[in-house]
Amino acid sequence: MRLLRHVRIVGSGLIGTSIGLALRKADVAVTMVDSDGAAQSLAQDLMGPSVNDLPIDLILIATPSHAIAGVISGELTTQLLPNLNVTFMDVASVKAQPLLDVSQSRLPSSRFLPSHPMAGREIGGAESARADLFEGCTWVYDPSGVEPESIERGLELISLCGASALAMSSAEHDLAVALISHLPQLFATLLARQLEGAQPSYLELSGAGLRDTTRIAASSPALWSEIVSANSQAIKPLLEKVRVELESLISNLDQPRFLADFIEGGNRGRAAIPGKHGGASRSYTHLPVVIEDKPGQLAALFEECAAASVNIEDLSIEHSPEQFTGLITLALSSTDAATLFGHLEKAGWKVHAPR
Amino acid sequence: MRLLRHVRIVGSGLIGTSIGLALRKADVAVTMVDSDGAAQSLAQDLMGPSVNDLPIDLILIATPSHAIAGVISGELTTQLLPNLNVTFMDVASVKAQPLLDVSQSRLPSSRFLPSHPMAGREIGGAESARADLFEGCTWVYDPSGVEPESIERGLELISLCGASALAMSSAEHDLAVALISHLPQLFATLLARQLEGAQPSYLELSGAGLRDTTRIAASSPALWSEIVSANSQAIKPLLEKVRVELESLISNLDQPRFLADFIEGGNRGRAAIPGKHGGASRSYTHLPVVIEDKPGQLAALFEECAAASVNIEDLSIEHSPEQFTGLITLALSSTDAATLFGHLEKAGWKVHAPR
Repeated sequence: MRLLRHVRIVGSGLIGTSIGLALRKADVAVTMVDSDGAAQSLAQDLMGPSVNDLPIDLILIATPSHAIAGVISGELTTQLLPNLNVTFMDVASVKAQPLLDVSQSRLPSSRFLPSHPMAGREIGGAESARADLFEGCTWVYDPSGVEPESIERGLELISLCGASALAMSSAEHDLAVALISHLPQLFATLLARQLEGAQPSYLELSGAGLRDTTRIAASSPALWSEIVSANSQAIKPLLEKVRVELESLISNLDQPRFLADFIEGGNRGRAAIPGKHGGASRSYTHLPVVIEDKPGQLAALFEECAAASVNIEDLSIEHSPEQFTGLITLALSSTDAATLFGHLEKAGWKVHAPR
Repeated sequence: MRLLRHVRIVGSGLIGTSIGLALRKADVAVTMVDSDGAAQSLAQDLMGPSVNDLPIDLILIATPSHAIAGVISGELTTQLLPNLNVTFMDVASVKAQPLLDVSQSRLPSSRFLPSHPMAGREIGGAESARADLFEGCTWVYDPSGVEPESIERGLELISLCGASALAMSSAEHDLAVALISHLPQLFATLLARQLEGAQPSYLELSGAGLRDTTRIAASSPALWSEIVSANSQAIKPLLEKVRVELESLISNLDQPRFLADFIEGGNRGRAAIPGKHGGASRSYTHLPVVIEDKPGQLAALFEECAAASVNIEDLSIEHSPEQFTGLITLALSSTDAATLFGHLEKAGWKVHAPR
């Protein structure tokens, strides 16, 4: 039996509205709320017609983390909640601080389920919301001290969003995201800052390495300043370790022996990142193909892939400045790479040996 | 008239052998040399049959940078060079140091053309060589103090490799690559080092941000320790500025105002990187499409792109752990994005609004 009949969502941004859309697809009634009346109205319109006089089972709080405890206080005093048999759940990127705030509120913390969908995309507003935003993503939740009914409701919400629930304590979660999300963000930002005011002729030589390492430097200052400050305690020791290693690097910049060890450590760290589908890190085989940079070429290439019945695990497109050919590097299993290599070569493609 | 009849290439690694292959395609005679006899023999075999009794016009040195001056001395004393009417050219990733070494050798520096193809790929050995490795890439050369015949020969070599020649002083080149290539390498390495020994459960939450920022951390320690140490003078002031900014970041980690400014600086630096084809940075429109992660889906998608006559500028594939659907984000011009959106929507694809 469905546990969720009616969910009230406070915060009509990308995350709140996307959750609303996913719930509506599963025929759960959804009430959208926002301190900004226009945002609330847009979000509610997006939900389509729904019967909202059913009792509320869960209040999802999709606001910035500092606002969570205040929202709960506000909700508890409204006429909308005739009883306390309602579950509160948040979706903020940091967990320890809102949990502390809530523990100091009037809400029994056994009815508050902290959670964080690892959706990882920096676009804002109800207008960017998508019912499938969470499909396939990992959704961390912290069940400690939460009563079973609230956990079950939260898990149903996660499941209706198409995500995989992963139990983790709030403290562990904050340490994990400090390392795998907040630290990379600050590295990309710090590196990109060095480019401001650089000679344009220098930047003309930029390649894929610079572009990849700085991609997330384009992220929202408003969003990230809140995330980083809220998790500063977990991030600080990581940055202090980085500072020590940076100082050691600066002192040894002309020592090839030191540098080789230093770079090898990076090789090992990089290899520790799991591949897609959450499995252990897989080494794909890479197949470089040179194509003309014009419509139809990618289609023709992928038609060949389909004809050869191989599965492309990943790919990259690389262009060189002022040249209108592109290098496509396909990542496949080694057997698929061998199959596709033979197939493409026979068909006259500029394909190079798998590696 | 062709200036290059016979090129002697010292160093049979990826770069030297690839240049050899490109020259052979243009029917230039090529002699491959390497201190490792097996590597030399493989590289020479790859060149196919060629008439090598023509006089040598250019000696290309494709060895590590510290070996360049020694190679020149060695070449000058061999019987192979009956006269000095031969051009020397190198292809090392740093330019100032080999140039200094050469100026202290017996070779008139007017016959030495320093150069660097921005090929940007970390794979080694003659077996990975490709005739088209340099196609479309920018190839920096330093013409200062070099006599015209040697410059013309060097430019012909660059052109036969399919690359675009760009004149830049060696000092400028070294400053440019310190910023746009060596600094990103060290950032990626420093970040990836922090992952070594991390809890596997933390790393399970990794997303595209971490993967992109650490991709080049997989680079070769041998290659990069030489590059960084040879260019340490240009890199050091950059890292010292990074250290100052890092210290300031650590001190202000709980200050949202400081952090927002800090992240905004990164936004501006990121925006300064030129887009593909060497033009000014272009903002593409992004079109997210959800597909099933199985053979044939990409092909079908790109067939639709071809049918709609749109040009895909870039794309990314994102998978979530333990889920077998993929999110393809296509980057296109805004008009192409609008066209493709309508086309895909009509055809029943899970396409989301361009943004």
